[in-house]
Amino acid sequence: MKKIGIIDIGSNSMRLVVIKINDDLSYRVIDEKKETVKLGMDMTYDGNLSRDRVDKAMISLSFFKDMCIAIGVDEIIAVATEAVRRARNQQYFVERAKDMLGIEIKVLSGKEEAFYDYFGAVNTLDFNDALIMDIGGCSNQLILVKDKKIIESVSLPFGSLNLSEKFHLKEAVNEQNENDFITYLADEYNKIPWLNKAKGLPLIGIGGTIRGIGKINRKRNHYLLEMPHNYKMEIRDIKDIYELVKSKDVSQKQKLKGLSKDRADIFTGAVGAIAHLAELCEASEILVSGSGLREGLFFEYLFKDKKPLTDVLDYSINNIVNDFELDKLHAQRVWSFSKMLYFNLKDAHNIGEAPQKILKTASLLHDCGVNISYYDHHRHSFYMILNAKTYGLTHKEQLMAAHISAFHRKEEFKIDTYKYRNILNEADILTIQKLGVLLKISECLDERLNGNIQGIQCSIDEDSVTIKLSSKDNPEIEIKDALEVSSAFKKLFGKKLYIK
Amino acid sequence: MKKIGIIDIGSNSMRLVVIKINDDLSYRVIDEKKETVKLGMDMTYDGNLSRDRVDKAMISLSFFKDMCIAIGVDEIIAVATEAVRRARNQQYFVERAKDMLGIEIKVLSGKEEAFYDYFGAVNTLDFNDALIMDIGGCSNQLILVKDKKIIESVSLPFGSLNLSEKFHLKEAVNEQNENDFITYLADEYNKIPWLNKAKGLPLIGIGGTIRGIGKINRKRNHYLLEMPHNYKMEIRDIKDIYELVKSKDVSQKQKLKGLSKDRADIFTGAVGAIAHLAELCEASEILVSGSGLREGLFFEYLFKDKKPLTDVLDYSINNIVNDFELDKLHAQRVWSFSKMLYFNLKDAHNIGEAPQKILKTASLLHDCGVNISYYDHHRHSFYMILNAKTYGLTHKEQLMAAHISAFHRKEEFKIDTYKYRNILNEADILTIQKLGVLLKISECLDERLNGNIQGIQCSIDEDSVTIKLSSKDNPEIEIKDALEVSSAFKKLFGKKLYIK
Repeated sequence: MKKIGIIDIGSNSMRLVVIKINDDLSYRVIDEKKETVKLGMDMTYDGNLSRDRVDKAMISLSFFKDMCIAIGVDEIIAVATEAVRRARNQQYFVERAKDMLGIEIKVLSGKEEAFYDYFGAVNTLDFNDALIMDIGGCSNQLILVKDKKIIESVSLPFGSLNLSEKFHLKEAVNEQNENDFITYLADEYNKIPWLNKAKGLPLIGIGGTIRGIGKINRKRNHYLLEMPHNYKMEIRDIKDIYELVKSKDVSQKQKLKGLSKDRADIFTGAVGAIAHLAELCEASEILVSGSGLREGLFFEYLFKDKKPLTDVLDYSINNIVNDFELDKLHAQRVWSFSKMLYFNLKDAHNIGEAPQKILKTASLLHDCGVNISYYDHHRHSFYMILNAKTYGLTHKEQLMAAHISAFHRKEEFKIDTYKYRNILNEADILTIQKLGVLLKISECLDERLNGNIQGIQCSIDEDSVTIKLSSKDNPEIEIKDALEVSSAFKKLFGKKLYIK
Repeated sequence: MKKIGIIDIGSNSMRLVVIKINDDLSYRVIDEKKETVKLGMDMTYDGNLSRDRVDKAMISLSFFKDMCIAIGVDEIIAVATEAVRRARNQQYFVERAKDMLGIEIKVLSGKEEAFYDYFGAVNTLDFNDALIMDIGGCSNQLILVKDKKIIESVSLPFGSLNLSEKFHLKEAVNEQNENDFITYLADEYNKIPWLNKAKGLPLIGIGGTIRGIGKINRKRNHYLLEMPHNYKMEIRDIKDIYELVKSKDVSQKQKLKGLSKDRADIFTGAVGAIAHLAELCEASEILVSGSGLREGLFFEYLFKDKKPLTDVLDYSINNIVNDFELDKLHAQRVWSFSKMLYFNLKDAHNIGEAPQKILKTASLLHDCGVNISYYDHHRHSFYMILNAKTYGLTHKEQLMAAHISAFHRKEEFKIDTYKYRNILNEADILTIQKLGVLLKISECLDERLNGNIQGIQCSIDEDSVTIKLSSKDNPEIEIKDALEVSSAFKKLFGKKLYIK
């Protein structure tokens, strides 16, 4: 086991994240700390980081270092971005951190920063082609990704902080300032020769601004899942929020539900920059990525190379199975049974192709709730699948997987159809119930945990479905328990269930 | 790390529980399995366990054994109670398990069974004096406890199975049968010379019947906490449920919300036995214990002695801290700060004496949600404190502790006052908010995790509260973060907060 600390010295905020890496290379975030130092502020005058802000940054770094020591961190990776990158007194800053605290700061180039942004997103979201945008305090990375590879990238020299300063966007914006601001954005984006290649792609946003926009939008729409990562919006949503904030002064913005107070003064500019880009590129959708630079640095450290994952979902499921020490063989047997039943029943019973990965997630993680308490663990698996780091599913798919896993036991579980009415339609609920029954049968077939049932065959006729088992020992109890779903099976699939 | 399997061969059901014991002796249940064999049924004819049922029991035992091997259990403890205890063919049963499966079954005497019932309850519920009742399939243990010690105990030869058989209680009960039944109960209870010493004490119920009663009652009352252990009822509740079930036939009982189907045929008798006892002893309240024989066996194994815990809450908090590998030093520092603030503020601000253990739980467990995911872990701590094995608090106290812990971070948390309106009154909510603020201050004071703040002093005057810190390094960040509660503090305590 190893613990690493990753420090990201941004132009607006400085952040520490501490990640525990187990011997099997599964990992988990165990601590975080953010300090809003606004290092990039007041730089415009002479191109130097202000002494005051450098002092503040050192106090924060020292705090991070103390935390790392207390937690028992083995290695610290510290990087700095735009503010330090273009500071005339960069060397002073880096040396002071080195001398005072023994922290080696690597100042990332724009290209490098773009790479880590990409590497954080591509390993935690399921996409092949996208335009990624990481708008920070003083810079804005745009990365064009096709087939999971970086095709183009650029680091633009504007972000929430310096846009706010330059165009006076802290308080309500007047028409002249707004015109200047929009013209500036248009000019900057137009300079990018390859941007037309991003047309119609999803726009993946990284950074505090887009997370803030996502949170505001979730509050506005009474979105019930508290999941910032992979939250999906449309161009309209971003534009609405830009219109909403541009006419508010800072104190009004501070009262906005979802926006953190220390971002209220620098929010308008960055929202405008995102909205403008989304419109220009006719983004098919806007996705919030909760992962970016820090996660990218982490994955490079973990993988020891720069190749993106080919299957984000598989990797994240595997991470949970290992990190929570689930019974891997049992999980895999249950998944192999439920997959078999699914493939045999999906066409005749209108389940469709899509839910395979949902069923896979539910099958492999059905026991993860034991980690909270064995008692009622189906309910806890529901909670964990919604809240642990399951990457590579949409929110709706994640919600469906959570429900299906909750059906794996005799204990009852109710779908809150009212609560989730905006996310799950009737067909989804039926799919959940059908797959839930298949999962329960599969779980019963390996409830002895020892692979007693070595294989299953499924035959279907007009009135019945027969599952034939090959087993080592007498599977009497497995069959009895699996047959408890008989009446539910009959109701959902319209056929009698036999298990032999 | 060690895993042990405990097998309990009861007259109605056979159960396996597998518990993982860490090197620091913290523990967690990791698997369970129940088979309803009804071993005690059909014994009345010749006093032998029926061949059929013995065969079934062996199949179940073999299943349990396979599970234990698959899980990697190091040691199996197997015990049998009333049905095997009084079976004429006891030896045959025990030897068959030994020869066929290598499982050594210890047949418990009534006294021993009563002890383990007591030992399971006394180590997971916070009481000094009580009458404990464990009504099983064919016997009924009554244990009088004073000052956490067993004063008297008896094992009565009736339970859900044989009462149902003897008095024909499976279907709706006719008057004659009921009269015979009640007369029999009265006679049996009247034979116990010491039962009058139990008058007015809480009655703690163990076993499937009382858990079933609890579940039915929770459903009937729309009780929102899914917590069977330590659920409190009144004599009236039990009597109502007896009246409800006695006139139903078995198929009607099977439809009863909360009652498991395989208990419907043997439920009426055991409910009657509990209701009659509760009334006879004028029980001050009836508590459901989710722990009994198996937990008692486990605790004896773990403690290597028969002494009950002196502080159930402390022990269970410590178990969670260790099992989930929380930062113990940090947790203790946060608790020492919050305790200090609490003692300084409680009298002047009407917080009262009672919440000390609530605050202690919240303080020591505030980070336990990180176990689910660091992101939003205050919300997960709420979930875990409600659902993990926190023993020694009432449900309401547990709910309050969960809320308070959820207030430990900057991230917002809302009390669902509507959802919990039957449990939390306005004063409780105010207490939660006040203690939540104290916890957040305390957490900030050790957010560096290294004990930088070595001590605090608290002085109060008419308009303000001043917390004076003694620290190793400059506590600038700690103070800044703690002062984020200023306006909430002012609102709740009516005083300005200073931290120096």
